[in-house]
Amino acid sequence: MAKMIRKNYLMAPGPTPVPFDVLLAGAQDTIHHRTPQYVSIQKEALEGAKKLFVTENNVMLLSSSGTGAMEAAVANLVEKGDKVIVVSAGKFGERWALLCKKFESNMIEIKLNWGEAVAPEQIKEVLDANPDVKAVFTTLSETSTGVVHPVKEIAEIVKDTKAVMVVDTISGLLAQPLKMDEWNIDVVVTGVQKGFMMPPGVALISVSKKAEEVIKNCKSPRYYFDLNAYIKKYPDSPYTPPVNLGYQLKKAVEMLNEEGIENIWERHALMADATRAGVKAMGLELFAKRPGNVLTSVKVPEGIDGAKLVKDLRDNWGVTFAGGQDHVKGKIIRIAHLGYMSQFDVIVGLSALEMAFKKAGYNVELGSAVKAAEEVFLKAGV
Amino acid sequence: MAKMIRKNYLMAPGPTPVPFDVLLAGAQDTIHHRTPQYVSIQKEALEGAKKLFVTENNVMLLSSSGTGAMEAAVANLVEKGDKVIVVSAGKFGERWALLCKKFESNMIEIKLNWGEAVAPEQIKEVLDANPDVKAVFTTLSETSTGVVHPVKEIAEIVKDTKAVMVVDTISGLLAQPLKMDEWNIDVVVTGVQKGFMMPPGVALISVSKKAEEVIKNCKSPRYYFDLNAYIKKYPDSPYTPPVNLGYQLKKAVEMLNEEGIENIWERHALMADATRAGVKAMGLELFAKRPGNVLTSVKVPEGIDGAKLVKDLRDNWGVTFAGGQDHVKGKIIRIAHLGYMSQFDVIVGLSALEMAFKKAGYNVELGSAVKAAEEVFLKAGV
Repeated sequence: MAKMIRKNYLMAPGPTPVPFDVLLAGAQDTIHHRTPQYVSIQKEALEGAKKLFVTENNVMLLSSSGTGAMEAAVANLVEKGDKVIVVSAGKFGERWALLCKKFESNMIEIKLNWGEAVAPEQIKEVLDANPDVKAVFTTLSETSTGVVHPVKEIAEIVKDTKAVMVVDTISGLLAQPLKMDEWNIDVVVTGVQKGFMMPPGVALISVSKKAEEVIKNCKSPRYYFDLNAYIKKYPDSPYTPPVNLGYQLKKAVEMLNEEGIENIWERHALMADATRAGVKAMGLELFAKRPGNVLTSVKVPEGIDGAKLVKDLRDNWGVTFAGGQDHVKGKIIRIAHLGYMSQFDVIVGLSALEMAFKKAGYNVELGSAVKAAEEVFLKAGV
Repeated sequence: MAKMIRKNYLMAPGPTPVPFDVLLAGAQDTIHHRTPQYVSIQKEALEGAKKLFVTENNVMLLSSSGTGAMEAAVANLVEKGDKVIVVSAGKFGERWALLCKKFESNMIEIKLNWGEAVAPEQIKEVLDANPDVKAVFTTLSETSTGVVHPVKEIAEIVKDTKAVMVVDTISGLLAQPLKMDEWNIDVVVTGVQKGFMMPPGVALISVSKKAEEVIKNCKSPRYYFDLNAYIKKYPDSPYTPPVNLGYQLKKAVEMLNEEGIENIWERHALMADATRAGVKAMGLELFAKRPGNVLTSVKVPEGIDGAKLVKDLRDNWGVTFAGGQDHVKGKIIRIAHLGYMSQFDVIVGLSALEMAFKKAGYNVELGSAVKAAEEVFLKAGV
């Protein structure tokens, strides 16, 4: 066909699809941020976000990407020479390591192969040998591999030490269960362009009382990301907040709380199950050793050019998956089931994969992945 | 699952999905309609619409549903006692008949069973026997059954008589090839909530010079729908036009002309082929004897409650199909592939049907319909 309209489907682990109501919420008149009108909007958004972090702590808004909030965590907790533990088993664990290097920490990096999850005992061992560790930096869902680390179990170990437990939940929050207070997590960092169903531009960070003490006394050089200013100003912002994203956050948080955090977790688990059933039916092999509900990473079969496949899916079929990063570039495909997604998004993704793999010469039975996913949905009664 | 976000999919023959850009075009400041600014917008929309009617005649905008434009056609062509031919083979052919009765015509109704298409020879026979027929009312795509009537061949017969050839293309235009001028069609009536990818609220009507003469001399009582006023005012409107729908029409027409009428027809034919391959793979039987590119009507298998199935698909799966109307209520399902639709809409519709039929106890092989559609898409190279 010479030319055909095409619809686009976002199936990468962020940005994720934005609901129409959230998009529209951003199309409202930009009001001044230093007004009770705006502050009350931001307050409502952030108070609502607490339920999604499952915490009584304040959730603070940063006008930045998720990486900004990661820098804020490091800059506010780590001074030059401080001993820290970093779990690095993918691109985003490595980002913690890079940040801890920049801030000249004395870092103990628990470095694993991409696709592996850390064992809580590994953390325990290092902590036992290093009682002066000030912070443990972990990742809930390692976006580059789809692995979910056992942060609940790690936090259980860290809570009895002087160290603060920091979790990058940028892609993981909402997709993957996390209860900040109950699990004794001290710092939770996230971005909104993932489970929050928002356009990018806002990061959220919440800190426990234990972390707040460290932050108050931390001497590291920082200004924009000095969390003391955000703590003091809550629910207002020390510097200009992204007003229209604030409207959208309020709307998205409302929608999410209307669904309810337990249901959101359950939905993501179901989409992950259905996707996994689908890719297994296609004969594909999972890459992650401990895959979570954010994304399913699959190994590209021998003889297929993974980068070309992802490009073809995006340019010719309108379906955006993520390929592999760094040394697994071209070797894996990451199929996200994150954010504003329900059954038929999974169906579309699997159907697109069936056709693209077939076209690329891989021996796939058309309809087989869709069938497997449908069976999961029917069994779940949704 | 207790509660889950659900996305909604419109797969009924109107309203059809509205592209985001068209929705946004409607969210602009409402300006006054008696301004050169607004008139130039409406002019651009209507001039662009000519390419979609494939005509040099003007296309006039009515602030009404499609039925309003049908009434306009009858009111402007038919006087009390005038002899007319009406082809009625479904709910919308019957609507022509109702209108022609209201306007007290001397109607010759060619009444066929629902699901059947008229043969051009049937028209020829009646016309030969009745050289005083003033107008022939036909339907391009009979929405209640999915049947496409051979209007090109009928027009070929009508063109050499004194009768004007009127076609209701409300659901058919853009999905089904139609070339107003080349095919000698005198009046084309449509609504925008179908192939035009618009929210409802606008009807379009175009008339040939031959029809214009009849309209000019017609004495039937009419005011709002007196086409002489619209002809005179073109591209402006005699009465307040729906300004924001005018913005949307301009945008939708732009998008459609960007795709190109031939490509639009080809796309609809492909979606219809894929859908038909899918429902046949499920073992379902087509209802329409001469199905077109607007919708695929399938017979509900013995033992399945069709009305319940359609309700279940809408309420539990978020997918809105149309059921049967009048005496085929509960007996057929109408699967539209009309308007802003591409491959994955067909995939979603078929997947939903597979699951809903399975749940309803029908013996369907999950994935089979999707597989058949995928094969059609792969073969077409899209």
